[in-house]
Amino acid sequence: MAIVVQKYGGSSLGTTEKIQNVTERIIEEKEKGQQVVVVVSAMGDATNHLVQSARDISLHPDARDMDLLISTGEQVTSSLMSLALKERGADAISMTGWQAGIQTEESFGNAAISSIDLTRIHQHLQKGKIVVVAGFQGCTSSGEICTLGRGGSDTTAAALAAELKAIRCDIFTDVDGVYTADPRVMKNARKLPSMNYEGLLNLAKMGAKVIHPRAVQHAKEHQVPLVVRSSFNKEEGTSIHHHHSVRDDSSAIGLTFEEGLSRVRLYSSDGEPLKSSALLQLLKKEEVTIKGNQVEADGSFTVILRNEDLYQTLSCFNRNKEKIGIGRMNHSTGLAAAHLVFIDEQSADQFKSRLSMPTELTNTDLWPFSSRPEVYSVLVDEKQAGRTCQILHDSCVESCLDLQAHIN
Amino acid sequence: MAIVVQKYGGSSLGTTEKIQNVTERIIEEKEKGQQVVVVVSAMGDATNHLVQSARDISLHPDARDMDLLISTGEQVTSSLMSLALKERGADAISMTGWQAGIQTEESFGNAAISSIDLTRIHQHLQKGKIVVVAGFQGCTSSGEICTLGRGGSDTTAAALAAELKAIRCDIFTDVDGVYTADPRVMKNARKLPSMNYEGLLNLAKMGAKVIHPRAVQHAKEHQVPLVVRSSFNKEEGTSIHHHHSVRDDSSAIGLTFEEGLSRVRLYSSDGEPLKSSALLQLLKKEEVTIKGNQVEADGSFTVILRNEDLYQTLSCFNRNKEKIGIGRMNHSTGLAAAHLVFIDEQSADQFKSRLSMPTELTNTDLWPFSSRPEVYSVLVDEKQAGRTCQILHDSCVESCLDLQAHIN
Repeated sequence: MAIVVQKYGGSSLGTTEKIQNVTERIIEEKEKGQQVVVVVSAMGDATNHLVQSARDISLHPDARDMDLLISTGEQVTSSLMSLALKERGADAISMTGWQAGIQTEESFGNAAISSIDLTRIHQHLQKGKIVVVAGFQGCTSSGEICTLGRGGSDTTAAALAAELKAIRCDIFTDVDGVYTADPRVMKNARKLPSMNYEGLLNLAKMGAKVIHPRAVQHAKEHQVPLVVRSSFNKEEGTSIHHHHSVRDDSSAIGLTFEEGLSRVRLYSSDGEPLKSSALLQLLKKEEVTIKGNQVEADGSFTVILRNEDLYQTLSCFNRNKEKIGIGRMNHSTGLAAAHLVFIDEQSADQFKSRLSMPTELTNTDLWPFSSRPEVYSVLVDEKQAGRTCQILHDSCVESCLDLQAHIN
Repeated sequence: MAIVVQKYGGSSLGTTEKIQNVTERIIEEKEKGQQVVVVVSAMGDATNHLVQSARDISLHPDARDMDLLISTGEQVTSSLMSLALKERGADAISMTGWQAGIQTEESFGNAAISSIDLTRIHQHLQKGKIVVVAGFQGCTSSGEICTLGRGGSDTTAAALAAELKAIRCDIFTDVDGVYTADPRVMKNARKLPSMNYEGLLNLAKMGAKVIHPRAVQHAKEHQVPLVVRSSFNKEEGTSIHHHHSVRDDSSAIGLTFEEGLSRVRLYSSDGEPLKSSALLQLLKKEEVTIKGNQVEADGSFTVILRNEDLYQTLSCFNRNKEKIGIGRMNHSTGLAAAHLVFIDEQSADQFKSRLSMPTELTNTDLWPFSSRPEVYSVLVDEKQAGRTCQILHDSCVESCLDLQAHIN
């Protein structure tokens, strides 16, 4: 019998009423004759509340305690969802991550799934039950509860779908598909009816909130068809599969956006070019996430990072000034990045080679920088960010939709 | 190294601030050179909130789902407590029931502990850590999470103390010891400085909320010294141990109280005495809890039960009227019971044999009934209950305290 995995995000499950509402979708799938595994996130703001309780006690809470704490959010939803399904007459069973056989590496707060023992899930599916699994969590071989990091329930769903050889993995969320930009922010963002794994992976890596990159990676590796769709309506959503379209187009497939960034620029003390690898190594040791970096035409070196990492970074560079040969340093903060995301590196290169900025942006202070090969990123003052994103989206993304429509 | 188990109830842990407050007591114990295991309940009303979420969805929620749901309450507290201890500089580790090795029978909602594997707890204690265990829960051999029923965290603490051969098990609660009556209700209730297991067991079985009978039973069987004390002050509390005092006194050791009761009286249809065992068997099948029963002087049979079970009981008797030979039935509701609890059956018998009701109660309609051999119970109209309890307490309990003081 074919297996379908459905994942419901926190915004679809914010109240007990919302939980009851989505049971219809689940039972519908079951009644089509499929075996159904449901993966649930924590209800609405539940995780944030748990994190806040911990922060009331400790500013730097222990990662192991945190995982024990926040994994309860999904456990609560799985049992409530199972109750709601039973109340509608379906047979269901709730499971924590470890009960569902999800084993992880020991890496609190951001563990990867190392293996899945499907014995119990198969037992229950064979009895005709809908299996409801708490997402975002698993257990190490030594019995430690680990969570899977941001978007972890997506990862649970995709990994289970891969392991179960599911015919489909539905990601139910509060938007009805993958859009060319976040539709909650950019009103004329358009839904992509279908795309391939690489495209979604690129969007997800650049911060598109619709799905977590690790989940897409799982789906891609095991060629599990993904569908991103809304839990609030019956729109078709976006289908993600493995088709390779021959593209003669270099339009971006989407635009993502990131606030709260800072830029640090370093000049050499002796005229010799700065060793960028040594600089990046220093920041890696400090566990600072580098959003972008590049060597400028004048030999100076620029790093983009989050505002909250700025002072740690400056202090780190300052301590290592002489060792690395850093002379002058300057920085600016309150910046945002707009990322034009392409289907692949080749499309991005084509775009970059023939790019002429939209005329509406000629008076805006934009600073292009390297983030990833398949992305064209510009840094801009936060105050200019909304307008810049809108113009970039409308002039550099829109055209690709005709092609997309053509493919489907 | 000696081990001490400390259990903190939900009212001691109602907020993150309260959790932080009790860390001092725990660290104090550790600094005396003991190894410390802390057992925690869910925070304040957390369990009630979880139960309410389930009831929003289902009036008769599945017991397995419920256990998965409500066990999260204690899991949350254990991680927050561990964080709070670390924040004060202590080394601590949080554990769920199953991580702490607590194995239960498969009986959702009211499981008994079947065994405890102390390997992980000992490992952490040997590393000098304070081990914080989520109370009220365990796991079956097949990996199902079960809760231990009402007062389950007391049971976890006493069972761990027994298995760890702890030198003491402290039960921290919102009253500072075991009283002759609930001190929140009866202002002149007096604290018992010490008592034996049997006495506390009898009080607990009759509804004294200070500790759960199953926990006392564990402590008694393994002779773990228990101390019931307040988490809000440093009062000595009540010590419970194994001493057998020679008693020449037949005073009650305490008074407990129960509202919301009904009484059903059945008359035989043919003058033959009713078969009480058959009647009780019927109610057992219906899972009705019988609070008391007795054959009256006129041959009729009386059953005391909770108001919420009344209509189910009447309907059950009605269905079996002819089979059992029931003639007339009558019932009254809105009743309360006062229980005078004795140290043992012998003391209770002495009391009963020479009882003359306090003169203040001669005009009150009291109906003595059999509940347990070591208890003298009277049923009274709920409106009279407060006054009746007060008089019974003051005249039949108070005198025992002199003896208690003498023993200590």
